[in-house]
Amino acid sequence: MSDIPARIEAANAETLRRMLAADPVLVDVVPAHVALPRLADRMILHSGPPIAWERMCGPMRGAIAGVAVFEGWAKTLDEAEAMAAAGAFRFEPNHHHDCVGPMTGMTTVSQPLLVVENRAFGVRAFCAINEGLGKVMRFGGNDAEVLDRLRWIRDVLGPGLGAALRDLGGVPLKPLIARGLSMGDEMHQRNIACSSLLLRLLAPALARKVSDRAALAAILDFIGRNDQFFLNVAMAMGKSISMPAEGVEGSSIVTVMCRNGTDFGVRLSGVGEEWFVAPVEMPQGLYFPGYSAADANPDMGDSAIVEVVGLGGFAMGAAPAVVGFIGAGPASRAADFTRSMGEITIGQNPEWTIPSMDYAGVPTGIDVRLVVDTGVQPMINTGIAHRKPGVGQVGAGVVKAPLACFEKALVGFAKRMGVS
Amino acid sequence: MSDIPARIEAANAETLRRMLAADPVLVDVVPAHVALPRLADRMILHSGPPIAWERMCGPMRGAIAGVAVFEGWAKTLDEAEAMAAAGAFRFEPNHHHDCVGPMTGMTTVSQPLLVVENRAFGVRAFCAINEGLGKVMRFGGNDAEVLDRLRWIRDVLGPGLGAALRDLGGVPLKPLIARGLSMGDEMHQRNIACSSLLLRLLAPALARKVSDRAALAAILDFIGRNDQFFLNVAMAMGKSISMPAEGVEGSSIVTVMCRNGTDFGVRLSGVGEEWFVAPVEMPQGLYFPGYSAADANPDMGDSAIVEVVGLGGFAMGAAPAVVGFIGAGPASRAADFTRSMGEITIGQNPEWTIPSMDYAGVPTGIDVRLVVDTGVQPMINTGIAHRKPGVGQVGAGVVKAPLACFEKALVGFAKRMGVS
Repeated sequence: MSDIPARIEAANAETLRRMLAADPVLVDVVPAHVALPRLADRMILHSGPPIAWERMCGPMRGAIAGVAVFEGWAKTLDEAEAMAAAGAFRFEPNHHHDCVGPMTGMTTVSQPLLVVENRAFGVRAFCAINEGLGKVMRFGGNDAEVLDRLRWIRDVLGPGLGAALRDLGGVPLKPLIARGLSMGDEMHQRNIACSSLLLRLLAPALARKVSDRAALAAILDFIGRNDQFFLNVAMAMGKSISMPAEGVEGSSIVTVMCRNGTDFGVRLSGVGEEWFVAPVEMPQGLYFPGYSAADANPDMGDSAIVEVVGLGGFAMGAAPAVVGFIGAGPASRAADFTRSMGEITIGQNPEWTIPSMDYAGVPTGIDVRLVVDTGVQPMINTGIAHRKPGVGQVGAGVVKAPLACFEKALVGFAKRMGVS
Repeated sequence: MSDIPARIEAANAETLRRMLAADPVLVDVVPAHVALPRLADRMILHSGPPIAWERMCGPMRGAIAGVAVFEGWAKTLDEAEAMAAAGAFRFEPNHHHDCVGPMTGMTTVSQPLLVVENRAFGVRAFCAINEGLGKVMRFGGNDAEVLDRLRWIRDVLGPGLGAALRDLGGVPLKPLIARGLSMGDEMHQRNIACSSLLLRLLAPALARKVSDRAALAAILDFIGRNDQFFLNVAMAMGKSISMPAEGVEGSSIVTVMCRNGTDFGVRLSGVGEEWFVAPVEMPQGLYFPGYSAADANPDMGDSAIVEVVGLGGFAMGAAPAVVGFIGAGPASRAADFTRSMGEITIGQNPEWTIPSMDYAGVPTGIDVRLVVDTGVQPMINTGIAHRKPGVGQVGAGVVKAPLACFEKALVGFAKRMGVS
């Protein structure tokens, strides 16, 4: 028994080593049915831990109805809802398919997926393409405008992006993130720098590969207007970094945090595929004009994978402008959030540093023991969806990962280690 | 006599008001002979205050030889130098033509110029297009590679950019700068954010207007590879902002700071077109591998116009990464530079704020009286050129505007106010 702490330290060091050794490269965009071999027709992947239709929140139901119409499985939203309630669709978490999705996180067969390959470990992770802001499916939007945009993404943007990425031989993401951190991004609520830097890299290749000039202009315009375009790339990257860190026997490091709008789910490196789940919290934040906390859905999405690898709330020190945007206090205190997350992580990333903190690395490797010991909850920067289907985003804020998940995870970990 | 201080305060308030009321818009790119009606053939505009060939530094002589070959006035660099020494070219400062240029600042008839229109005051200012980094004419480079690039800029990039800007109806720069300040740019040694944001805006219009796909890809690639592309836009913007602030009777505010590699020149709003000149200082900075201070040319260029309007060294608090790049101390102390510049300025720009300083506006309106009273010299972030012709950039650093310029300017100002 006495060697257990040492075994955990060694396992955690290995988990962190794998995270820091990652070499994520955005390599392609491919249709989901090609990318995900186990994704069948009438299967809908969603954000967060597993959940049945009956317990799903409003925006997730709205998105499911919308995506069923988009895929041609139903003619109307009402029909789609009835089919969903009758069990016509199979629901699985994105995380069961090496995939992630923001907010409602819908992934179905015909959507184009971003492909991030972690070349240091030979694994690939996937995420749909960001739809832009406002009324979009990831926030529960599902009307004709939303579905038309998804069709354009499927037919024009996805193929164009894929061709450009193949032409470039991929875009290495580690240096891009390093640069973004020196430009005010934390890669969750703020992706302006990385979205712009990525477009700079892609634009010449798009010009070479997209022969229709109107389509080319539309693609450049769509990406250029979306300050959050990079979020989905960052998420697929986060998953590609955390995947090799899964399954290290004896490791108490968190490899997944995610939410489905009802439950918050956590997975640990050393406890295989078990989910540790607790009711999700409400984000604390600022609301767009005309909305208030009464309109808000509880926290949602797989996007917290970026916090798992040291970005988002953990990298707040790099992004003082985010602090104000999400109503989390004076901008000059941004570094306090990062320092606080340092209390529950076992290392820093020497390649992802924060200039204003004299190039301190972002805190990386959340140790479930430290979370439970200190009571410091992981801080997640997040968007806020309307609680009703079809409305969309109403604000942005910060949410704390529920302590109960980590307490359960620690119990599960202890059991696995033969301690309890 | 007793009302003189009050008159100066009122005049300075008016000067600052004009600077802050500016509405600079990047509207076009046009050949210099069209943009500048008084720019004649065989006339060469240069950076800094007036200077004769005999007193010019190495890189400026090298650039002059190069640009004379580029314009077809000489067949070889040697012939061009001999012609220059024999008085074949007329030299005038860019600033005498509502124009600015970085480092050597060459402006001649066939070069395409960026046009920034200050729509609040109906004035236009101009600057050549940034050539990229390394061996370039602004740092004294003049070989075939440098001249071929200038030809491509003249024949392909300039016309393409102009068409895109006209298609967009111009790009408003005030909000772009505001965004850049929240992304780590100070718009002198760091323009990564604004270069990227500008490309995002331009790319769709370029796709619509440049019909040759290879040319389009080359343009997108050239802009995308140049982190300093925006510098020249910022400079033309700075000039367009300071122009309406010139000529306010009784104002002790600085409207021009510039250097020709030999002399540093200052102009004051209330003292018309008189130059106050002193020997330029050596930048303190970091050198590229293989170079040292022994290789450095004294400070050079019209780029200090960005400091005149509150950017560059004055906005260092927004750009902690610059502090390290130019070897000016720990990045976490970036705000100290901005606070220090607050001691010699009469206001802050409420639209150009620094998030990490809780949205303090950049210090704006350098009062020559405050400079002389406090002895605090305006801080300028700058590139460092090799002192020999033809080599190019060898480093980057920070340089202090020589106090003697401001002492002379204060004497000139007192004379103008009838005090001495």
